[in-house]
This record gives sequence, C-alpha cells and structure tokens, in this order.
Amino acid sequence: MATLKVDLAERSYPIYIGEGLLDQAELFQAHIKGRQVAVVTNETVAPLYLARLEAALSGYQVDSVVLPDGEQFKNWQTLNLIFDRLLECRHDRKTTLIALGGGVIGDMTGFAAACYQRGVHFIQVPTTLLSQVDSSVGGKTGINHPLGKNMVGAFYQPDAVIIDTASLNTLPARELSAGLAEVIKYGLICDQDFFVWLEANLERLLALDAAALTEAIERSCAAKADVVAQDEREGGIRAILNLGHTFGHAIETEQGYGTWLHGEAVAAGTVMALELSHRLGWIDESVVRRGCALLERAKLPVAPPAGMTAQAFIQHMAVDKKVLDGQLRLILLKGLGEACVTADFSREALQATLQARYPLFVA
Amino acid sequence: MATLKVDLAERSYPIYIGEGLLDQAELFQAHIKGRQVAVVTNETVAPLYLARLEAALSGYQVDSVVLPDGEQFKNWQTLNLIFDRLLECRHDRKTTLIALGGGVIGDMTGFAAACYQRGVHFIQVPTTLLSQVDSSVGGKTGINHPLGKNMVGAFYQPDAVIIDTASLNTLPARELSAGLAEVIKYGLICDQDFFVWLEANLERLLALDAAALTEAIERSCAAKADVVAQDEREGGIRAILNLGHTFGHAIETEQGYGTWLHGEAVAAGTVMALELSHRLGWIDESVVRRGCALLERAKLPVAPPAGMTAQAFIQHMAVDKKVLDGQLRLILLKGLGEACVTADFSREALQATLQARYPLFVA
Repeated sequence: MATLKVDLAERSYPIYIGEGLLDQAELFQAHIKGRQVAVVTNETVAPLYLARLEAALSGYQVDSVVLPDGEQFKNWQTLNLIFDRLLECRHDRKTTLIALGGGVIGDMTGFAAACYQRGVHFIQVPTTLLSQVDSSVGGKTGINHPLGKNMVGAFYQPDAVIIDTASLNTLPARELSAGLAEVIKYGLICDQDFFVWLEANLERLLALDAAALTEAIERSCAAKADVVAQDEREGGIRAILNLGHTFGHAIETEQGYGTWLHGEAVAAGTVMALELSHRLGWIDESVVRRGCALLERAKLPVAPPAGMTAQAFIQHMAVDKKVLDGQLRLILLKGLGEACVTADFSREALQATLQARYPLFVA
Repeated sequence: MATLKVDLAERSYPIYIGEGLLDQAELFQAHIKGRQVAVVTNETVAPLYLARLEAALSGYQVDSVVLPDGEQFKNWQTLNLIFDRLLECRHDRKTTLIALGGGVIGDMTGFAAACYQRGVHFIQVPTTLLSQVDSSVGGKTGINHPLGKNMVGAFYQPDAVIIDTASLNTLPARELSAGLAEVIKYGLICDQDFFVWLEANLERLLALDAAALTEAIERSCAAKADVVAQDEREGGIRAILNLGHTFGHAIETEQGYGTWLHGEAVAAGTVMALELSHRLGWIDESVVRRGCALLERAKLPVAPPAGMTAQAFIQHMAVDKKVLDGQLRLILLKGLGEACVTADFSREALQATLQARYPLFVA
C-alpha cells in the first residue's frame, strides 16, 4: 500500500493506494469519528462492492443509499435522496459519509457532507480510474445545474481517500479510457517524464497491469495533491488541472449530461487546447501530435462531436467558472509538461480553433 | 452609525448599525469586489426597499431576484430560483450577493453564496428585527428539509452586515415581537444587565423609539459577535445562542413552517427551557417569572400550541442538530445571564416539562 498526503494544514488528509483496501476495516476505523456511517453508492457499484464495504464497517450503524447511475442524476433531486436517508435514519453531526463509486458519487456525497447539518465527515472510496486519479482528491464537490456543470457546490475536503486498485477489474473499458484522459492530462500540464512514461506504458494500463496502474494512480494523485496544496480554492495555479475542461464542459452541456463520458469530453477538449496553444505559437506541432496520438491509443475521442458549432461552444463557455469580468480564461500549454491559465489569446484565434478541422491528423 | 466587528481572523467582518444606511452607496462599494451584484429579496420587502438599494448600487451590473415571502419557501425549489437567475445573467465568481430581507432571505442568500460556483461574496442587509439581532450575524446559512429545520446548509460568513434601523418602521408589529424574543434571549443567556435594561425599556422598543432600538440591536449584535468569535462552527459555547430553539424548532416542524413565526416558537420554547432549568433546581422561580413576564410584555406566546403532545415534541427533538450519539442536549440556565449546553437532565424531568401546564403563571 502506498500512502500520499494532501497537505492543507488542519484540513490535511491521506490518500491510500493498494489492492484489496476495501476489506481493510482498520483503515476505515482510523477515519470514522462517531458511531454512524452512511454509504452512498449507485446501482452499478452496489452489487459489486457494497456488501464487502458494509462487512468492513461492522460495529457501526451503517445506512446505505443506492442512487441511480449517471451524470444526468448529478442534480438536486438525487442529492435530496441522501438527505432524506440521513434524516430518516437520524444521523447526527458526528456521522461519516462514505462515497463508494465514481466521480458523480464522490462529488454528490462530498457536497451532501458539506451541507448536512452544515458539515459532517466524509471518506472517498473511488472505484473508477477517473475518480481515483482526479475527482476524489482536492475537495471539489457539487452538482450540475441545467445551465452549467458543477455550478453549485463547495470546497470540502474528505477525511481520507481510500483507493482499492482491484476495483478497476470490473470497470468497463470505456470508463477506463475516460480515466486515462485525466492521467494523460497530468503529463501534459506538469510532468513531462510522466508523459514519456505513459507513451511507453499505455498498453499495460489498458491491459489492467496492476503494477502499471498503481504507478499511474500514484503519480497522478501526487501531481494533483501538489497543485491543490499550493492553491486549495483555485485562486490561481489550481486552474491548470482543468486543461481541456472548458471545451469539454461545453461539449457535455451541449450533448446533455451523460451522453459523452466526462473523460471523453475532456479528451476532445484537450485536443482543442493543444490546437490553440500551437496556433498561438506556444508549442510545436510535435507536442500536438504526441498528445493526440496518446489520447487516441487510449481509445479516446480526438475531435468534438460532429455538428457541434463554434457558436454552441462560445455560448456554453461564456458561463464557465473561469470567466472573470466577462473575460474567458483558458488552460493552454507553453510546452510539454508546462501549463498556464491565460486570457492572452485573440477572439479570432479561439474562433479558428473552434472551427478547425478535426481530427487534426489522419493516421 | 455604530460599527462592530465580528472577529474571525481572515473571515472577520464589520456590522454597521444606523438610520438610513440603505442609501449609503459608499458602504456597499467598500464591500463589493467585482462589477456584478445580485440582490435577493422577497415580494413583501421589494416594493418597500428594492428600488432604493438598486439606486445605491448604480454603476454595477445589478440583477434582482424577488422570492415568495415566508418560512415555507425556505427550500430547494426557492433556492434554485437564485441559481437560475445568477446563471441566466452570467454572474461569475467575483459576483456579490446581497440579502435584502429577514432571516429566511438571509439564510437562503447566504447558502446560495456559499454554493454558487463553490463560494462567492455576500452582504447581509437585514430588514427585520430578528434578522438584525440574530440571523444576519455569525454565518449560519441554510434551508429547511421536510424532516427538520435548517438541516441543509453551510457555515459561511458575509463580507459585511449593514443594518438600517429605519427599515423597522415598516415592520408588522407581530414581526417586531418575534425579533424581541431573540433580543430577550441575549439577556437571559449572557447579559444580566441587558435583561434589566430590557425590563426598563421594553415599551420604548415596542413604540419603535429609535435610540432604544439602536441600543438593543447593538447590544444584541455585540453579544452574538462575542460568542461566534469564540466558537465559529458551534463545537461548544456557540450552542447557547439556541436557548429555546430545540423546543421551538419542534413547534415549527409540528405546525408546518410558517404557521408560527420563528421568534414566536422560540419564545414558547424559552419558557419551556426556563421551566426545565427551574425543575432541575438550577434557577429560582423568580427568574422564570421575570422571563415569562418580559416575553409576555413583548406580546409573545408563553405556552406551546394547544394540543401539541409531549410525544410530538420528543419525535421532532430527536432529529435536532444538537443530538450527539443519540443523546439530546439542551440549552438551559444556571442563573439569569448564564446559560449552558447540557445533557445533564433525566428523561422524566424533560417529560414533566413537556407535560407541564402552560402558561405557568396566570396574570
């Protein structure tokens, strides 16, 4: 088992990474403060892992909430099912919520923990690659609004993140690929060596090689923990974690949540961010090529949805959380492994990127 | 104009108290960070004060949301009207929300500010006595759930509280009385001198004497700011501010939100807390008499609703936020001006208090 620390003073917490951690009762006990626990999961994950987690929690009052599965349920109505259950079972302020599932479950459970009785404890047990390497770490929680993704939420840190790499054995191939979009992102924004390692090891990850997965998760979490420790509430540098996300969110909003997976939209958005960075003369075409090639090997889309217009992008990007004083800011690359948050691009350059011909390269 | 400070390190903020502050543009300008402002108010307050506040905010992009008036609207559905408006008008992370109204508007606007894009600025402009002396100060925000009051929310401090005492001139008498319940509370829990001052000056307050109102608001806010500075997130001492509230919340939940005003329920609940404190031998009957007499002079109920059973109280009190590990804790008095948070009472004593004959004293 590997242990990392997210360093946030009195809100610091550990990330545990290893095979079979779901059954390690003492790991959970170390981070549960009261005698009540509520496990929040979904219809897909519950049959696979809920009974095992409940077994590890024997000795506590455990109440479980099984939500419908999918980004389209990341809303007020579903969030309220968690509050209903907590109140019906009379959970008090010392209760601990455990998120067992992917990013949607983690984001909603974290937000429920932030709001229930104005804040209770919670533990992340991410079961998808995407949530293991990204959304479970850093304290961003929330739900979607019909007019924008993650528009309602809180910065609220978990008490621990417990990553059982064995849970990836049941993950659909499409979800594994979606997670790889975020893994590749870390290489692009802040870790050139990791990018080179991924170019050498991508097929091992697709084949669920345990050692390779553990290394990729650990390096991804370490990169994220480092950025979050510098800037918990995204006043500055933390925004680089959103490479490809402004374009990607626009794709998700346009398609309706749940059509493309988040990681798929991010992959296409990353290609667009690379295209714009190159158009501005900040990176060589070779970096765009290597990024596209790696995403494609990970079986991810490298083009926005056919028929999505530049106008549709502009409209959705105007409500992005990185807009300040009417000015859109984007995450772009200054080099491989070097991202920046910038508004230093012309409307014409952005327009050209939105209208460029994708895929950029034909194999 | 009087200025107090709520001392919470980097989350410290001023409370301004005075006549006509609603028109003082420079007070608002000093606490607005971006160029966008959203005023949240209700159908009762909007015709009285919205145009004046909007005039004071000229130069900003001002978008206003007028919500229905009443505790029964303090829920998800109404909260979402705020998010809808913010997103429709493309408010970004630098926006400032202004709560113009009573406690319901303040609690909902504060919670909306806590959650919108994971946290934006907000200013409290309380227009009722109750919100001026209590709910606008201290950062408790939230909404109700059908199974419990204020069960979903956040600790989120405003950037400033701006109290225009002139707004009390349009306040219905019943609402003025409801606010006095919280004013009297401060005397009972932590300020015997203030209680004596209230015994001498209550009729001046009921007659809207400006000097008396300013003094009562200032002393109440100072008491609250002092307690909140000691214990922002209610780990301990802050709970004393809830004298009468556990009984009161049970009354509100049983009646359906909006039947009794919050302050009315708190008044009846305070009588019950005094009764139990006396039953336990902690305070003299004279303190119970003086408390009941002052509440009655303030035209507040000194008995729970006719027909509300002990069983109904017990059922609603079991989901109170002060329940820990199944143990109900109450705020009781050890003397006039001296409150404590305690679970040190028998089930029988509580039962006897719930079944006692109210009103306790017949004039």
